[in-house]
Amino acid sequence: MNYEFSNKMTHVKASAIREIFKALTNPEIISFAGGNPASTAFPVDAIKKASADLLEENPIALLQYGLTEGDPDFLKAANAFFNRHEQVTFESDMIITTTGSQQIMDLASKCLCNEGDVVVVEEPSFLGSLNSFKENGCVLRGVPFKDGQLDLEKLEEALQIEPKPKFMYLIPNFQNPTGFTMSLETRQAVLALAKKYQVMILEDDPYGALRFSGEDVPSLKSLDRDGLVLYAVSMSKIMAPGMRVACAIGPKEVVQKMVVAKQGADVHTNLWSQKVIARLLETYDMDAHLTRIKKIYKEKCELMLAEMDKEFADGITYTRPEGGMFIWVDLPKEADMNAFVKEALEKKVAVVPGNAFLTDDTKECHSFRMNFSTPAPEDIIKGVKILGEMTHQL
Amino acid sequence: MNYEFSNKMTHVKASAIREIFKALTNPEIISFAGGNPASTAFPVDAIKKASADLLEENPIALLQYGLTEGDPDFLKAANAFFNRHEQVTFESDMIITTTGSQQIMDLASKCLCNEGDVVVVEEPSFLGSLNSFKENGCVLRGVPFKDGQLDLEKLEEALQIEPKPKFMYLIPNFQNPTGFTMSLETRQAVLALAKKYQVMILEDDPYGALRFSGEDVPSLKSLDRDGLVLYAVSMSKIMAPGMRVACAIGPKEVVQKMVVAKQGADVHTNLWSQKVIARLLETYDMDAHLTRIKKIYKEKCELMLAEMDKEFADGITYTRPEGGMFIWVDLPKEADMNAFVKEALEKKVAVVPGNAFLTDDTKECHSFRMNFSTPAPEDIIKGVKILGEMTHQL
Repeated sequence: MNYEFSNKMTHVKASAIREIFKALTNPEIISFAGGNPASTAFPVDAIKKASADLLEENPIALLQYGLTEGDPDFLKAANAFFNRHEQVTFESDMIITTTGSQQIMDLASKCLCNEGDVVVVEEPSFLGSLNSFKENGCVLRGVPFKDGQLDLEKLEEALQIEPKPKFMYLIPNFQNPTGFTMSLETRQAVLALAKKYQVMILEDDPYGALRFSGEDVPSLKSLDRDGLVLYAVSMSKIMAPGMRVACAIGPKEVVQKMVVAKQGADVHTNLWSQKVIARLLETYDMDAHLTRIKKIYKEKCELMLAEMDKEFADGITYTRPEGGMFIWVDLPKEADMNAFVKEALEKKVAVVPGNAFLTDDTKECHSFRMNFSTPAPEDIIKGVKILGEMTHQL
Repeated sequence: MNYEFSNKMTHVKASAIREIFKALTNPEIISFAGGNPASTAFPVDAIKKASADLLEENPIALLQYGLTEGDPDFLKAANAFFNRHEQVTFESDMIITTTGSQQIMDLASKCLCNEGDVVVVEEPSFLGSLNSFKENGCVLRGVPFKDGQLDLEKLEEALQIEPKPKFMYLIPNFQNPTGFTMSLETRQAVLALAKKYQVMILEDDPYGALRFSGEDVPSLKSLDRDGLVLYAVSMSKIMAPGMRVACAIGPKEVVQKMVVAKQGADVHTNLWSQKVIARLLETYDMDAHLTRIKKIYKEKCELMLAEMDKEFADGITYTRPEGGMFIWVDLPKEADMNAFVKEALEKKVAVVPGNAFLTDDTKECHSFRMNFSTPAPEDIIKGVKILGEMTHQL
């Protein structure tokens, strides 16, 4: 049998970083390549207790079929939680539970885009989302950053193309992979452009609660009065990713369409996860928990940056994120980034080549991404030292 | 903001049965409309114990990110389980965990079909799958049943259309909604046609383990030596649907493509569910468990059929399934089925109008679907009596 695949799936190439992730199964490798939360950040005891209590109280509620839009207990608790510091849910909005925020990318692009439709994305941006859009037949149009902010001129150019892009995908807080945070001025300008050109925004905010320095900036969703923003928030980075629970909050009409798409995608999200998280949101001291996690990430980030400051050669620049999980490193223009990443892997340090985050990974790129949330402190010191030595030989 | 949706999502109409399911929130309604396993069929104590043990032994393994293709412990246990009575996994095959078998419909149609491609389906067939295919832009071509078997002449006609259909979707055991089981002869003929026309088969087998009378018939997958069949099996009906765990087993090339699509759809399936089910498959007496469930379903099915034999008017025909969850009722050609279903709902008995399971729900239809797995015995007696009285007034 000769298998033929759809055009949209044929366009998604076996990723270059797959090789890197394969290498990570080798325990000798120090990995700055992943994006996992620190294992020490999970509220293990609270999850154990909630799970045992819920399975005792009403096991059938965790085991029977549930509602596609989400478990009512979870939706209520999550909505209260995500609105605790700023209003993101308005009267014209609706909330849906998804199987991780990756599913929001899938459902939104399936509902909003025909094959060939354009989606505007920050460039570089999160590989998983870019692939999800491509797998729904979308064509990506990248908008670069300029001095750590989205280039608004280039964004406006992208919004002016015909036919009109279907939405723009933005990660305003501690962007993946760059670690950049969008300023309030840029957020307001982006919203004004979205309104002017009537193009929706898919705001991805997985790390918003993980700010460990600087001041919070209001989400695009909280600033939007025109039903332009679909807001994606996840429990993966503040609770546990293996539970696969996230929420989308946005205009009723759009979210209702996503409910129909989710019915066809996986019927509903795992109920144990939703019920356990609902219980924690209601009874566990989430502020204390977040304070504890943020301390872990702040220490790891500061350690990695201090080691980089010490070990890296002059001329190597990198971002200093105020939250999230990633640092973005720029090598000098004359350096061969892919050769550097390959050599690092031979020396048992894994980072992700920056071109993996581009709309076209064959484009020239001199950057790579480092993750500080997963590795242990001693591995951060050891790994940065190895990379640092390499930077002196460029 | 004026929201515009993709053509494929616009084609999926708000379903007629949505109104029925809305009515089901009324506790006075006797529902023969759902498709839920009996709550008494869940292995609650074993799940409680496995969950507590696993959260004690290695909580991080349940909470951290997992592999897209599935948890290795689960894949190993599931593969052994699904191959225990007949060989369904061959050397050229691969297995993937999915978020319920609904996700198999989504991933398979996304990987195999461009917008406008044809998928051949039994008619009537499972609404959730038909919608999933439509939501991936597929065009459905229905093949009717003839004397309880798929009409092979009509199937061959459907496979001869140009361009060639991308796959055929079949539920050979206790089909949803009809309860029909495909005979060995028909299975062999279907495989021969698939080979002749080189069209893949997506074999959906959620109820295969729930045979409560008659003899097992080999799955299409076990009979296939040509890499034609992608086999979908679920834990929902034999363990618990709220856990959202299923497996697809099929040609490596196809399943690997589905892994890429799953990465973009939800990264991976909930780990707690996978680990708990793996533990049960390894340590729990699954044969005793299945014997217990099958007894529950056999009794409910026999009760419903006995009541129907007693209460229903002459001229009303219905299937006598040997497993699964559904009975398919044919009203006389001159009866108005939709009016009958509506009146039944007013009398507080819910069934699903048969046209919901057609490729085009505006087609003429005189049938409806009854579920026997969910209602309590006293409700089966009471509900069938009400329907029976109505049949005498047709």
